[in-house]
Parts: sequence; structure tokens; C-alpha cells
Amino acid sequence: MPQVNIERIEHDITAISKFGFNEEDRGVYRQGFSEADMAARQWLRDQFETLGMVHEIDGAGNVSGRFGPADKPAVVIASHLDSVPAGGIFDGVLGVVAGLECIRTMQENGITPAYPVEVIATSEEEGRFGGMLGAQALTGRLTLEWLENAADERGVRLKDAMAEVGLDYHKALHAYRRPETIRAFLELHVEQGPVLDMEKTTIGVVEGISGVFKWMVRMIGKADHAGTAPMDMRADALMGMVDFAHEIPRIIDEEGTDKSRITIGHVACKPGFPHTVPGEVDFTIVGRDLSEDKMRSLAEACERVLSAIARKHKLHFEYEQMSWLEPAYCDPSIMALIESKAKALDYSYKIMPSGAGHDVQFFCNHTKAGLFFVPSVHGISHAPDEWTHWSDIERGTQLLYECVTELACEENASMVPVDRALQD
Amino acid sequence: MPQVNIERIEHDITAISKFGFNEEDRGVYRQGFSEADMAARQWLRDQFETLGMVHEIDGAGNVSGRFGPADKPAVVIASHLDSVPAGGIFDGVLGVVAGLECIRTMQENGITPAYPVEVIATSEEEGRFGGMLGAQALTGRLTLEWLENAADERGVRLKDAMAEVGLDYHKALHAYRRPETIRAFLELHVEQGPVLDMEKTTIGVVEGISGVFKWMVRMIGKADHAGTAPMDMRADALMGMVDFAHEIPRIIDEEGTDKSRITIGHVACKPGFPHTVPGEVDFTIVGRDLSEDKMRSLAEACERVLSAIARKHKLHFEYEQMSWLEPAYCDPSIMALIESKAKALDYSYKIMPSGAGHDVQFFCNHTKAGLFFVPSVHGISHAPDEWTHWSDIERGTQLLYECVTELACEENASMVPVDRALQD
Repeated sequence: MPQVNIERIEHDITAISKFGFNEEDRGVYRQGFSEADMAARQWLRDQFETLGMVHEIDGAGNVSGRFGPADKPAVVIASHLDSVPAGGIFDGVLGVVAGLECIRTMQENGITPAYPVEVIATSEEEGRFGGMLGAQALTGRLTLEWLENAADERGVRLKDAMAEVGLDYHKALHAYRRPETIRAFLELHVEQGPVLDMEKTTIGVVEGISGVFKWMVRMIGKADHAGTAPMDMRADALMGMVDFAHEIPRIIDEEGTDKSRITIGHVACKPGFPHTVPGEVDFTIVGRDLSEDKMRSLAEACERVLSAIARKHKLHFEYEQMSWLEPAYCDPSIMALIESKAKALDYSYKIMPSGAGHDVQFFCNHTKAGLFFVPSVHGISHAPDEWTHWSDIERGTQLLYECVTELACEENASMVPVDRALQD
Repeated sequence: MPQVNIERIEHDITAISKFGFNEEDRGVYRQGFSEADMAARQWLRDQFETLGMVHEIDGAGNVSGRFGPADKPAVVIASHLDSVPAGGIFDGVLGVVAGLECIRTMQENGITPAYPVEVIATSEEEGRFGGMLGAQALTGRLTLEWLENAADERGVRLKDAMAEVGLDYHKALHAYRRPETIRAFLELHVEQGPVLDMEKTTIGVVEGISGVFKWMVRMIGKADHAGTAPMDMRADALMGMVDFAHEIPRIIDEEGTDKSRITIGHVACKPGFPHTVPGEVDFTIVGRDLSEDKMRSLAEACERVLSAIARKHKLHFEYEQMSWLEPAYCDPSIMALIESKAKALDYSYKIMPSGAGHDVQFFCNHTKAGLFFVPSVHGISHAPDEWTHWSDIERGTQLLYECVTELACEENASMVPVDRALQD
């Protein structure tokens, strides 16, 4: 039985980690369309060339390499090469390198796929410009207006950043891949959360990407001298925020599921002086669930609780919904394939949602798409000390290989729809 | 019966408001030792001159004017002329102008005091350099070390700011007034809080200045992705702060009094991103009470609650006590005098603590000292829309006049000690 080679995988991940590596904080700085990002993409094309694959960079900056016939829909293995600032070495990279290793393993075992296997390193997945450019381009979820206006935090426009590296943003709209050109889509990623590591489980079979809403909330009371204003005469905006935040566990118990998340990540008091009762507090609410109905229930409960607490504390509140992204569901037949292969390999696995966004989410409504995780030690990601044990990397890649070869080599491989939603 | 003249008072307050007035935000910018501050002090000396008073500026920048004999202990009327940035027109100024008006009223009614009446505009009360320079100098609460090291928020050193306006900081240590040179100390101030205005009471007879402690607290958890970290696997530093803040009312109910205040005025989340569970939260706790025992109980309860909540949320916490200022108590005989005069004038009054610091606090352990308030509309102060009705200004000044003339003109005027603490 063909085995993937962990030494080659480690070599490749290490090689890519050099692009944008910062010796000081030991973090990876390979933001989309940076010099380091483009160098990593060129490195990948060199590997495709060595393996005799047909390769290209499309108008959105996606780098793809094909192994197998040109005239049939492809089994796509994709993830990204760009990183957040001070990121880790596995995030995204694993899915691309595992794809390369699948090709090499097929080649050294003399396996010729009936369907082409295509490895894609998508561009700008980490959202430097506020989207997932590569995956959106491939699935037709881009507009000219967005391309022309998107900018990063420093005000650099996407179109200028693309021009800088020789890409014409108009061409991003040519990167669209019609659904009939894709047989299946697979992504392997590190979990970036603590669940698999804490539960000592090897594989997370992802059922979907949680939907997410983001609110900017402003509580408005009255700034007062912290000494002269008696407790019962205050309109303390911070205490409004505090009373709301205190209710979050109850809101989830009553309205949510074990897949719900509500997070306050940012709080700013005005004027923010120790001796002044805060007259105004701005804070963010980010809510998630795998069910859009549940998301709506959570959002409604947040509004209800904010409203009641504002009344109680003599405050006003206002909020702006900055975004509402609906959940995306992985294909049940692909999930069933991943499960059956994990069972066959005797890897422990669990069905779970993904709380983080991934390239796969744009492919969910476009083709039969699946995503699975390997454990992140202590759940750490987007940080220099992101780590996944090499033995888990090896298992994840082996599982990817099993799925890919079945999808690419056998005509009606486990592509029988299974309605997982009905099973649960 | 001699009456103070509200037109003269209004004229003077308006005249002083011009020094450092900003047309744009209509706030007063007369920070200690600024050009505007020194100009206001010179204006005051001109008034003293006109009234034939003996006047001087001491080494700390305090401007004083004496009416009456030089060889007896003085009845001191004091407050300050400096302001916070964007301050109001009454804060401090009222006490100085009311003192001037007392002298004028005595003069026009042909009253010659047996004891000198001294009006002092203290320097740098608002704490640009972190203290109350003038009052500390007068009461011997200064050190050479502090004078040499104190600096404002921009890093300007006190000694340089003083040199700039022609003052030698060494001379501040010569400003000390031996207790036997002061017969009594009186301060009239706007409340800077909402109590009198809300309760429609004219006069607040201050029993003491609340003690205050200030802590910088750090809650330390673990930064996590707000999507991938399940609610029960988080160590959310913000939720630790939130649970603590939620307990503040209970802490006061159980350990404090109606004079207790606990305020969180500043909160900073790290990293402070909407999609990241806060791994660290810095916040301030400022606690106050009129009893130092109660302050200790409140502080101990805060520590206990922080500790329990940290355990519950898998957090660590640390705190630094930035300051602990003990309460200061007004003299019961002076309080009794103010009360009796308020009763005689048929002004409504209430006994209350001062949550804000005032010049008087340094005189409390130095001489027989008293402070009383007139209402601040909506409790607003340290802001351009600080306001006190002219009729309340008039009543406060009349009451000051009654107290001062009794203390200065009659040998054993109500200076009989009354132990108010025992009455309460």
C-alpha cells in the first residue's frame, strides 16, 4: 500500500517557512502579494515543473499544477501559502504541501489517475484585503467594484498591490472555474483550535464552516467624576457592557448550541481615565454558529439583552452590523469518504464544525467539497508557536492521499450522496 | 445685615474665565504655571492691591492677600485658580472670588476684623504634576526629591515649568505656614457631583474627603481564535474582568457604605481584535470611602473576588497598588459653624463626603479646616458645560461671609469643638 513520505513533507514545509521568516519573533510574515508570498508561489511552480505537472498562475494569483488528463474534471486539492503577520509555518502550507506529496506518492507508485489531480495554492486567503481573493475568484464570487476598492489596513489598495507583483486585477475575473471542471474539492488544514489536541483525536472531519456576524456596539451613558458621582446616580457605559457580557453564557445556553461562540474581543472606554466613570464604551460582538437559524436567535437575544441592560443603566446603545456571513456545509458524500478512509486507516476522528474560515467555504456551494483537520498543539495558530506533530502531519497527508486516489482513480468512488444532516 | 454682591462676583468670575478661554470648545485651559494661570494670578494681585490688602506670591506660586492685623493667626479662605484642560469657569475660581467678595463686603460695611482674613489662590491644585503643589507647600507636605522629579504627562518637569514663570522650586519649601499662624481654614467649592442638584439642596457641608486607592490590574489568560476555541476551552481574560466588574455592586453592598465608590475607568484588551479571544486585559480599579477601615474592606474584597474569578476562568491576575490616600476629616467645630449659619440663613443643607480631592484636605490635619459645596448643575465639572446657578453662587458666598466674619471678628466664635463623628 503506497505510503506518503514524511521526510519530503517536512522538507517542503521547512522550505516554505523560509519565505518571510522573521528571526526575531520566529514568525512568518508572508502576507498576500508580498515579495515573500510571490517567492513561495514561484518555489511551488518549480516543484510542479520538477514533477512534470502542467502549471500556471491565474489572474488572481492562484498557482495550480495538474497531474493527469486535461479533458476531465479535476480532483482539486487546495489551500493557501500566504500568512498573517507573525504567523505559523503550517497554516495553509500543510494543505498545499500535502497535495504535492499526493502527486509524488502516486508517481512513485506508478499510479495514473483517470481524473486529473490538481494542486492549487490559493491567493490571499488570510484576508489582508478583507476577503479570500483566490477562492472567491475560482468560484465566481468576485466583483469588479470590490477589486477596485479593496484596501489593506494601511490603505494599500488590492489593485496596486497586485500591479506591484505584475498582476492585472481585471484578470482576476478570468480565474473563474466552472463547476463542471471540478470533480471534487479537498482541503487539509491544521485545526487552529484546541479540540482535537485536548480530546487526543487525530482527524477532524469538518461538517461545515460556521456562519459569523460581527457587530460594533456603542453604549452611551454619562462621563462622571469617579469620586463625586454616587453609584446609584451614574450612567456608567462600561457597567452596561459588563452586564451584557456577563449574560453571554446564558444567551448561548438558552438560544445556542455547543457550536455557538460569542466573543467580545475589543473594548474601548471613553474617556478611559481611571478617575472618570466611562461615558461611552465601544465594543465588538462576534457571534458564530453552524446553523443560520441559531445565528439569528443569538443575534436577536444579544439585541434584547443589550436593550434591557441599557434601560436598567440609563444608557443608550447603538450597533452596526459590520458583516453577516452565512454558514457553508461540506458535501456529505465527501465527508463519508473521509470517514471511511479514516476508519480503514484506524485513525481516530470526530465530526466537527470549523469556526475559522477556509478556502473550502467558497467551494461548498460550487462543487462537492470537503475539509478535514489535524490537531494543533494547544490549539495555537496565527502565532509563531503554532505546531502540529509530524506524525499527525503524516497521518493527515496519508488520509488525503487515500481520498484523492479513490476520487481520481475509480469511476464511482464513494461519491454516493449521504445526507449527514439527517443522520445527526 | 451685610449682603454680598452677586454682580461683583459674576464680574470677577467672568474676568478670570478669560484667562485661558478657548473659543472653539468654550473650555478653560489654565493649567498650573501656564501663561494663562500666571496672568490670572497677577489679576488677583491687582484686585488685592485695589482693596488695599497686603499681598504676595510665595515660593510655590500661591498668591495671598491679607486684610486685617499682621500679628494674629489668620482666617484663611482658599481655593485655586488653575484648571484642567477644557475645564469650567467655577472650579476653584469660586472659592477665590468668594474670598475677595467677603473682603469687599466687610470693607463696605466698615467691618474691621480682629483676626486677619487672608485670601489664598493656591497653585497647581489640579495635579498637572501629580500633586496639589500649593496646598502641600503651605502645610509642609512637600519634599525636595518630589519637587526635583515631578513631571507632567508630556514629560515637562515641575522645576522647569516653575523656572519658566520665574519661580525657584527650592523656594516652595519656604512657603510652609506654621499651624499657629492659621486660626481657621475655609473653602467654598462647586460640588462637581450631582447630589445637591438632584436633591435640590443649596449647601453641602463636607464632613471629609474620601480616601482613595488606585489599582492597575492585569488579567492574563490565553489569546485564542474566536471561532475555533469552544466557549468551555477558553481562558478569556476579558470575561474575568467582566465577572469581577459584575460583582462590584455586591462588594459595596456587603463591605462598603453609601459613601463607597468603586470605578473601572480604563480597560484595554490585548490583542484587542474582534475575532480574537482576549489573552490579556489591563484595567484600573479606583475605590473610595470616607472610612479607611471600609477602604481596606473594599480592597480586600476586590482581591478575594479577583482571585476566585481568576481560578474559575483559568486566568492569572496581578495588580499594582498605584496609590492609597487616606481620608481627611473636616473640623467638627467648623462644620457646626457652617451648619448653624446655613440654618440662620434658611438655606437647605446636607452633610456629605467629598469624593473629589480639594485644597482643604491638606489643611485638615494642620488646622481647623472646613469645606462646603454649592450645587453643580447635572453634576458636571471638569468640562466646558460646568455650571452653577448665580443664585447658588450668591448663597454660597453669603454663607462664607457669615462664617468668616464670625471667625475673624469675635474672639470665641463657634470654635467650640463638636465631635460630629460621635453624633453620627
